[in-house]
Order: sequence, then structure tokens, then C-alpha cells
Amino acid sequence: MDLDVARQRSQENDTKIVLFVIDGLGGLPHPDTGRTELETAHTTQLDMIAKRSLCGFTLPVGAGITPGSGPGHLALFGYDPMVYNIGRGVLEAVGIDFDLQPSDVAARGNFATIDDDGLITDRRAGRISTERCAELVAGLRQIDLDGAELFVEPVREHRFVFVLRGEGLSDEIADTDPQKEGVKALEARSTADGGDATAALVAKFAKEAEKYLADKAPANQLLLRGFAKRPSWPSMAEVFKMRPAAIAHYPMYRGLAKLVGMETLDVGPTIEDSLATLQESWGSYDFFFVHYKYTDTAGEDGDFDRKVEKLEEVDAAIRGIVELEPDVLMIAGDHSTPAVMAAHSWHPVPFMMTAPNARADGCDMFNETTLRKGSLGTIAAKEALPLALAHAGRFTKYGA
Amino acid sequence: MDLDVARQRSQENDTKIVLFVIDGLGGLPHPDTGRTELETAHTTQLDMIAKRSLCGFTLPVGAGITPGSGPGHLALFGYDPMVYNIGRGVLEAVGIDFDLQPSDVAARGNFATIDDDGLITDRRAGRISTERCAELVAGLRQIDLDGAELFVEPVREHRFVFVLRGEGLSDEIADTDPQKEGVKALEARSTADGGDATAALVAKFAKEAEKYLADKAPANQLLLRGFAKRPSWPSMAEVFKMRPAAIAHYPMYRGLAKLVGMETLDVGPTIEDSLATLQESWGSYDFFFVHYKYTDTAGEDGDFDRKVEKLEEVDAAIRGIVELEPDVLMIAGDHSTPAVMAAHSWHPVPFMMTAPNARADGCDMFNETTLRKGSLGTIAAKEALPLALAHAGRFTKYGA
Repeated sequence: MDLDVARQRSQENDTKIVLFVIDGLGGLPHPDTGRTELETAHTTQLDMIAKRSLCGFTLPVGAGITPGSGPGHLALFGYDPMVYNIGRGVLEAVGIDFDLQPSDVAARGNFATIDDDGLITDRRAGRISTERCAELVAGLRQIDLDGAELFVEPVREHRFVFVLRGEGLSDEIADTDPQKEGVKALEARSTADGGDATAALVAKFAKEAEKYLADKAPANQLLLRGFAKRPSWPSMAEVFKMRPAAIAHYPMYRGLAKLVGMETLDVGPTIEDSLATLQESWGSYDFFFVHYKYTDTAGEDGDFDRKVEKLEEVDAAIRGIVELEPDVLMIAGDHSTPAVMAAHSWHPVPFMMTAPNARADGCDMFNETTLRKGSLGTIAAKEALPLALAHAGRFTKYGA
Repeated sequence: MDLDVARQRSQENDTKIVLFVIDGLGGLPHPDTGRTELETAHTTQLDMIAKRSLCGFTLPVGAGITPGSGPGHLALFGYDPMVYNIGRGVLEAVGIDFDLQPSDVAARGNFATIDDDGLITDRRAGRISTERCAELVAGLRQIDLDGAELFVEPVREHRFVFVLRGEGLSDEIADTDPQKEGVKALEARSTADGGDATAALVAKFAKEAEKYLADKAPANQLLLRGFAKRPSWPSMAEVFKMRPAAIAHYPMYRGLAKLVGMETLDVGPTIEDSLATLQESWGSYDFFFVHYKYTDTAGEDGDFDRKVEKLEEVDAAIRGIVELEPDVLMIAGDHSTPAVMAAHSWHPVPFMMTAPNARADGCDMFNETTLRKGSLGTIAAKEALPLALAHAGRFTKYGA
């Protein structure tokens, strides 16, 4: 749904909506058993909810498109992920909770290895340790750029964030990362009018960095890509007339929630921590995005059994949400992460919504096979929130 | 999917994809048996493939829209048929394998009958024979147009193709065919700036043709419509990073394949010919469009039993494709042609895709009833190819 349509229809009321995101929820059958992670896990609570829910699948971005965490979540927040696109640099900055200002320009940085001729031999500098990355970054921070404030922040292994802060900066800067080996890092250059001054700052940084890194092999070069500014998007509060809160422990998801104007609440790493925060803050907000990360991590690690365990952990905890009696409860995933693929995938993601006036589909289990019987079929993930708002009585009639 | 999105996501690899198009595939129940053509045919091979496939239906263009062969195929090639629209003149030229140049202007021609006052009494000239059409066309070719080269080619019965070749020609020319009887043929006129010279050439041709045809009743007039230039579209090779080949015997389908940049391979008229060509060229391409025509012909003829036979012919041959072990095999139709309607129709078309990491739906037969249990539901036909590319590992992640 277009945000303008949502804005015209939305109205406040006293209902509570919970969007519980089980990261990387969808899966594929284990070759030995023919059963997916959800089909393998014992999920009594989820199955009980399924019986009285509207059931189906969400398609995060589009047919065949494997989403990253950014698009996968934005869609569930009601934002069309093809329209509300986040530059890589911003996502990386957001992912470490860097307080990006609207005029900042951020890029993702990689330490890399070059040979004596300056040709890249390893785009990841042998995946140096995060500690080594922090040391190198501390050195890079000393580079003096006349015309902008410089921030360099370690992320993990060979990855860091590069941020310029100042007046009139442009993010129309081409990557210096050629995205292949055997060639040199590219010169910083502007891709649009008015970007030359910023490109010159980046070029100066790159040059000084090359000097500083010269004797730091395997991290003797750096590559920058995805120059971007923090987008200025309509907030969920303004569009959907809700007070939205995010209960997410990991910086990336907190950052995404902030981009759509959610309050990010303090929360520990466990699902019990999430429940405690949800209970404490229940009176203060009317939309809660609760994020559970460990299913995705297990999936990405290709650990089928651990993903199953994590689904059972979710199942045991979910009663804590149900007992709060939210008017609308959505159980969703930002994308599928089948353990057999050890990666995000394009597959539609199991979804259910329990709410007053929902046409319950009576699916007796919450998994990839049973949900096919649901009446939702496969909907665009961005339609889930409008549907929740309707069931919560938060959407007015269209036309007389 | 927008081609720009596909272009950004697509990457090369070593996989092979086969799109097998069974023309006019979908059907409707026979009034005596209540079973569709597919439900009547014994299709052991197709049913076996269905059990391990992602199943559902494709909607060629949109709800309720009956597609011609052009849009039906373009959608399966991944091109939005509402955006990639082929002018009638071009489709007609392509349909007879006329080697249309980018600057040519083509129109579809009809021989017609007029009375003594010049009023059209039959827009199809009593459907003269194709032989007679060829004779008349030979006469029309003698018309001398100062300023452009003229081609007139017979198609079938009263239909022919009219092509102007030269510099600076415009296709913004209104039809001379009024599309009704009891009125005169319309004057050729330009509908946009810069088209007057071309309109004058068409007007001169029409005037000379009228003289030549004066004593050729019932074909004593001609009507032109659908002036168009050959579109210049992004190629499948460029957008999807594949080497695509078409195995199609009929000129129309070869022409459509050429419009999206496929190599058109030499192939005989039978399904065995198609298989032989597929086997021979297996190493040279990575995407194969294999076209089977005769199901559509039988459907258009209203011959239910023959359509059933042709489906069984397909079924017997399909093992030859399976044995090549394509990474992704799509069994699709460009549209439905229910024998009981003896025409193309708007009905969603049976579809299945077998691929690694496909969530097999376990549909135990390939027909209009069983496929309803498939997880795909009804997808836009233009989404089929992106989905195949994802399953073939040819799409990169969207967003981090």
C-alpha cells in the first residue's frame, strides 16, 4: 500500500498491535526427513495460534528476490522496500548504532590486501580480526580532512564504516571498491554535479589511508562502497497514527526501526528479556515490533537442528505475548533462511495474524505445508501491516 | 519485475534453464465428462514432474485479459506485456519471418471489397485464398514510391504485410482501416509532428493500389492498420546475463524470441525435432525456450480430443528434456485455449517449476484442479522467469 493511502485512512484508537518477527523464519525440507525446520520443531503454542488465525505467506520484496534484513523488515513495517531503499553505507552505520545525521555521508569500508603493484589480491584482507580492525580504524581516525569531520568505526573482521560530516556533502560518489581482485582500487569520483568537493575529500582520505596502511599487510589497502545519506522518510507515527516501539537487541534492527521513527526500547539479548520489556512498556505504546534473531543465525550457519531448537524456544515464550491479549498479533519473518541453504532466500515466509474479525483459516499447524491451506495465500509483505490496522479498527472506509 | 531490477540482481553461472511452452495449455471441462483436456489426457511424465515441483498457475497479462501470442510469450520471457507492447504491424511482419530493420515502418494490411461508391462492403474481401493474396501482392509491389523502398508480403487469405524502408520514416500514422463497413477507407494521415512525409508515402501507395485493384473485386481495396516500428528492447542476454536460445518452428514465435535477443535455432516441425535440437545445442546456451504449437491449434479448432492427444504427445516426449537434467525446468503455457471455447482465453495457465531448493508442493497430477493445491497460487506470468533465475542461483541479494 502506498503510504499516502495509509495516511488518509489511518486513525487512532486504543488497540494494541504486536508484530513478532522471527528472523529468517521460513525453511526448506531436511534431505533426510523431508520436513522443514518448522515441520520438525514441536511448536504447540504456534500451532494453537494458527488454528484461530488468518494464515498464509508473505513475499518480502518480489518473486525470486532474496532480501537482506533491511528490505525484509521495512516491508513488514508497511514500507515498500523497492521504494524505501537504504544505501549500503547507511545500513552499515545503522547496524552499529552510529548516530548518523541527515547531512552525513556514510560508506561501507573493507580492509583489503594489495601486492607491490597495488593490485588487489584479497578484498577482505584475510578477514583480519575485529580487534585488529579496531586498531587500524583508530589510526585512520587521525587523518586530517580539511572541510569535513571524519568518523571511522570498526564493524567486524575486515569491515568498517566511513562517515563524513559537514556542510554540502554529496553522496553521489562512485565506489572505490572495484568488487574484484587483480585490479587497483578505483579513484574516488563524483557521479553527479556538485559532488566534486566530496569526491576530493574521499580521495584525500584514500591517499592518506594508503600511506598509513602501507606497512600493515594483510590490511594494506581499503575499499569504500555504497556512499549514502540517511534517508528522511515519513514516520510510522505520522503515517499510521500509532505510537510504535521496537524491542530489538541487535543494532541493525534498532537502526532500521529508527529509520521509520520507532522508539527503540532498552532490551537484553534473550527472548525473556524481550518479553520483560514488552510487559513493562505495554501501556506506553500501541505498536510493538519484537525481534527474535537466533533462528536466522542458526539458518545462516546451516545448523538445521539449532534452528529447530530456536523455533521451540520462540514457541515456549510466545505465551507471554498472547497473555497480554494484543488486539492483533502477527507472527512473521523478514525472509526465509533455510538451514539447507545456509543463507537468506527468496522463498515466501510463513505468516499468521490473529485478530478480532479475522476470518480464521483453521490451519492446524504453523509450517510451510499447512499454511498453504490458509486464505491469505501469498501476500506482499508490505500488505501485512495495513491488514493488521484494518483488523484493529485503525483504518477508515475508502469512499462513501 | 522491472527489467532494471532484474538487471541489477542477475549474475552468470553454469546452470541450465528450460522454459517449455505448451501453447494454449490451459483448458476447460468437456461438457460430457466434466474433465479438462489435461484431466482427460494420460500424462504420466508430467504428473511425475508435478510431484516434485513448485505448482500453480500463471496469469499471462491480467485478470480477465485474453492474450495474443505476443504478450503471452513476452510475459514468460520476463517482459511485462503491458510495457513491452508490440505494434500490430511488427507482430505481423515478425510472424512471417520478415527481416524487419529498426528504421522500417510496418503495417498490417487487409484486402477488402468496396461498392461503386467506394463504401466498404466486406473488410476481408470474402477471405480470398492465400494464393490470390500472393498474386495481388506481387502486383502491389510494382508501385513506385519516390522516397522509400516498398515491401508487400502475403500472410494468409486476405491478410498481408506492408513495409516501408527508408530514412526518417515515422510510425505515427493513423490506420486507413475504419474497422467497420459502410464507410470509405480513411485517408492516410500523420498523428504526430514529423510524420507528414511518411503519411504522404502511404497515401500515394493507397491511391496507386486503388487503381491497380479497381478490377480485382472482391479484393478491390486495401486497408492498413497498426503502423509500427520494430521496438528496440533490452535483450535477455543483457538483462538476465544468460545465453538464450529459442527452439521454435513457427515464424511468429521465432520472431518474438528475436525481439528479446534470443538466438533462434534451426528446428523441424515435430516435438522430436525440438528435442534433437535441444540435445545438440545443450552445451552452447544456458536458457532454452522450447515451443510446442499443436495443443493451441487443436484448442483453436475446438477439437477437444486432438488437444488431449497432443498433450499426450508432449508427455511422451518430455522425458527427453528431463534426461538432460536442466537445473530449472518450467512447464508453462502462453495462455489457455480451451477447446470448448475454440479460442484463446483469459484463464490462468497451469504452471510448474522443478528446481533445486524449490519448495515442492507434492501436487500429484498436472492439471487445472490439482494445481490449485500448489503453493504458487496464481502468479503473474512475468514473475516466472525471475523465480527460475532465483532457483538457479542467478539472482543476488537485494539490500544488505
